[in-house]
Amino acid sequence: MKKLKNQNVKGTMDYLPEDEQIRRIVRRTLENTFIRYNCLPIETPILNEQKLLDSKYAGGNEIVEEMYTLSDRGKRELALRYDLTIPFAKVVAMNPGLRMPFKRYEIGKVFRDGPVKPGRFREFTQCDVDITGVSSQMAEAELIEMALDIFNELGLNVTIQYNNRKLLAGMLTFISVPSSRLNDVILTMDKLEKIGIDGVKKELQQKNISPEAIRSVERYAQEWIGQDLTYFEQFAAENDNVQEGLNELSELTSYLDGLNILQDCSFNPFLARGLDIYTGTIYEIFLSDQSISSSIGSGGRYDSAIGGLLGSEETFSTVGISFGLDVIFTALKGRTTAIIKEDKPDYVIIPIDAKREALIVASAYRKLGYQIEVDMSEKRLSKSLERASKRGIENVILIGKEEVKNKEIILKTLNEGKEERITFNF
Amino acid sequence: MKKLKNQNVKGTMDYLPEDEQIRRIVRRTLENTFIRYNCLPIETPILNEQKLLDSKYAGGNEIVEEMYTLSDRGKRELALRYDLTIPFAKVVAMNPGLRMPFKRYEIGKVFRDGPVKPGRFREFTQCDVDITGVSSQMAEAELIEMALDIFNELGLNVTIQYNNRKLLAGMLTFISVPSSRLNDVILTMDKLEKIGIDGVKKELQQKNISPEAIRSVERYAQEWIGQDLTYFEQFAAENDNVQEGLNELSELTSYLDGLNILQDCSFNPFLARGLDIYTGTIYEIFLSDQSISSSIGSGGRYDSAIGGLLGSEETFSTVGISFGLDVIFTALKGRTTAIIKEDKPDYVIIPIDAKREALIVASAYRKLGYQIEVDMSEKRLSKSLERASKRGIENVILIGKEEVKNKEIILKTLNEGKEERITFNF
Repeated sequence: MKKLKNQNVKGTMDYLPEDEQIRRIVRRTLENTFIRYNCLPIETPILNEQKLLDSKYAGGNEIVEEMYTLSDRGKRELALRYDLTIPFAKVVAMNPGLRMPFKRYEIGKVFRDGPVKPGRFREFTQCDVDITGVSSQMAEAELIEMALDIFNELGLNVTIQYNNRKLLAGMLTFISVPSSRLNDVILTMDKLEKIGIDGVKKELQQKNISPEAIRSVERYAQEWIGQDLTYFEQFAAENDNVQEGLNELSELTSYLDGLNILQDCSFNPFLARGLDIYTGTIYEIFLSDQSISSSIGSGGRYDSAIGGLLGSEETFSTVGISFGLDVIFTALKGRTTAIIKEDKPDYVIIPIDAKREALIVASAYRKLGYQIEVDMSEKRLSKSLERASKRGIENVILIGKEEVKNKEIILKTLNEGKEERITFNF
Repeated sequence: MKKLKNQNVKGTMDYLPEDEQIRRIVRRTLENTFIRYNCLPIETPILNEQKLLDSKYAGGNEIVEEMYTLSDRGKRELALRYDLTIPFAKVVAMNPGLRMPFKRYEIGKVFRDGPVKPGRFREFTQCDVDITGVSSQMAEAELIEMALDIFNELGLNVTIQYNNRKLLAGMLTFISVPSSRLNDVILTMDKLEKIGIDGVKKELQQKNISPEAIRSVERYAQEWIGQDLTYFEQFAAENDNVQEGLNELSELTSYLDGLNILQDCSFNPFLARGLDIYTGTIYEIFLSDQSISSSIGSGGRYDSAIGGLLGSEETFSTVGISFGLDVIFTALKGRTTAIIKEDKPDYVIIPIDAKREALIVASAYRKLGYQIEVDMSEKRLSKSLERASKRGIENVILIGKEEVKNKEIILKTLNEGKEERITFNF
């Protein structure tokens, strides 16, 4: 057979059954856990009005640049969604009748025309839970617990780093970073682990942050490393933001402690998350063995996005978490964890000149709940048995003309070579 | 709260939880049945090279006109897929190592910039199974049985109409329709039920079919109505296509009879299906109560598409079936069938100044497999109870400071008003 050369667009790929079976397990584990946590499903369109997606309350300039745009036959200016957060905020803003707190999940494709690297695609699947209408840290605690549940079930050891934007902003103000430059500095500090303190200094210089502020950042960065919450208490009296951030963090840690998951979480005073929208708690999930260095899930509190979309000053307490199906799949592929089982039929039915009867037997076994394959290859029996054996199939059912006449089928156990004839009323 | 006006693009919509829960049931019923029939999952990209999708082996001109096109930052000419068939054919053609027969399913979004009417969208979800590598009618029989299984489980009574393109083409040749115009005539005849014989005649005139051929079509159309297979046997000796079509149909009906589902199927000699690609058996699924007049699933055999995509004369025996998630959802919405249950938490936990303990109790109950909601609204207890009661919640758990001190929780049955205190070790 001739082979067609790769037809896939850069940054997209096909998942063949071997991989897609693993992705199905991940998707179902996520969804079943979402349901157990009483998250409600919604589904929003991939096609959106361009002006909705480049709203300033959306993902920031970097993402808007990566947006795929198109127009339809009616000359509408459209774009493909690049996250599930704006669609969620839109749904909340369009439906004031929703029962609050509203906790929804959505699993769906998003698109970003950005750099491609291993595990990073232009078309990928996000799995998001967002809760709106909860101002306490219960929301964050529940989402963090849910994330740990999911990765535990998938057999992946993870650590969840957390921080608080108010604490971070307050501390930066305290060390004299001007408030107009806070976000710029925060977005750069987020890269500390990746690019080191020299990289951070360089980027801050490029952003025209004053030399004094950069020196402060450098000095404090060294001082903050490895500090726990108590270290920051000394600054609380000096800055309201620090105080509020600490209050929220200690509320959160009290919940995590109660849930006996504090040991799976790690406070990181530099964690910033690359998006402007966050206003409180933020968190990122990392594989404990660091076999993948980027995070495999993340989220945080963003209390202004929905109000912003509405063009109002109203605050909507909102907390979200996002899981990347593709990166979780990458983490699982090749690993043996209890939940990753190869999907094989319980029985392969091989007809020998008895197609009609093979279909009838298959139907009867499926009604009993079995996963059944009918061998329709019309190959010789020895060939069919060899193929089944190679695939690790344990049980086959043989039906020939003689068996049909005698109203019986042959159950054959391949590894033991045992055969048993059982009556079957065709 | 201010309300955002509708932001959705024409032909797209949001599914809120009430509807999405039904769609989830449909999606899972389909997928679970696909698995029971040993279909393997694949996932293909939505973004494709434009030149792949407007290949002449694709959906025909009408669909290509409705294709959304766009270009990326690298100036690639892209398009959004409009079906799952071309992506399937592409995967088969790109991966000659696939074990044959190859039976895959895919559930995913497709896009068509076409007319919008109730139940017909521009962005919608298809659920397809295709089998390649099976030349016998076992493939068709299995797909038809699978469709009946699915609709039976969903509680929808359906009838599957079937026909054979070879029979239809042969009969039209026999009544002197020139072979170059066969497809034109077939596509028009497909509309017989919808536009009547006068409509068919008119459309054939517009297509410049000769008056003699149109008269033949009219005469035979009346003669064929309600005929079963035996009627067509008299023409088999005159035309090979008719003979082959009849052979295939009688093989298929022998299987359907063996599976005891022939009574759910109905031979319709005019059924044509609106696409060029079909080469053998074709079928369409209709609601028996005709509450929706368009089909809710359809498919057939297309033996040339994959070879065509490869630019070779090779024949790939291929049979497919496609279910429309949106139309099935529309059919189910508002109906009471056993499988459509409202998704409600098993327990709602209401903390009264005991947030931390509420989270701990929720965690313990979820570990037992229960679906748990923690009431995070921070409303008064009476208000929370009223809301739970209105939603038809049966069981709530109350935890106040007193209970925490006594290491107990209150289990309250809302409709009976019963309360029970049970020990809980926070």
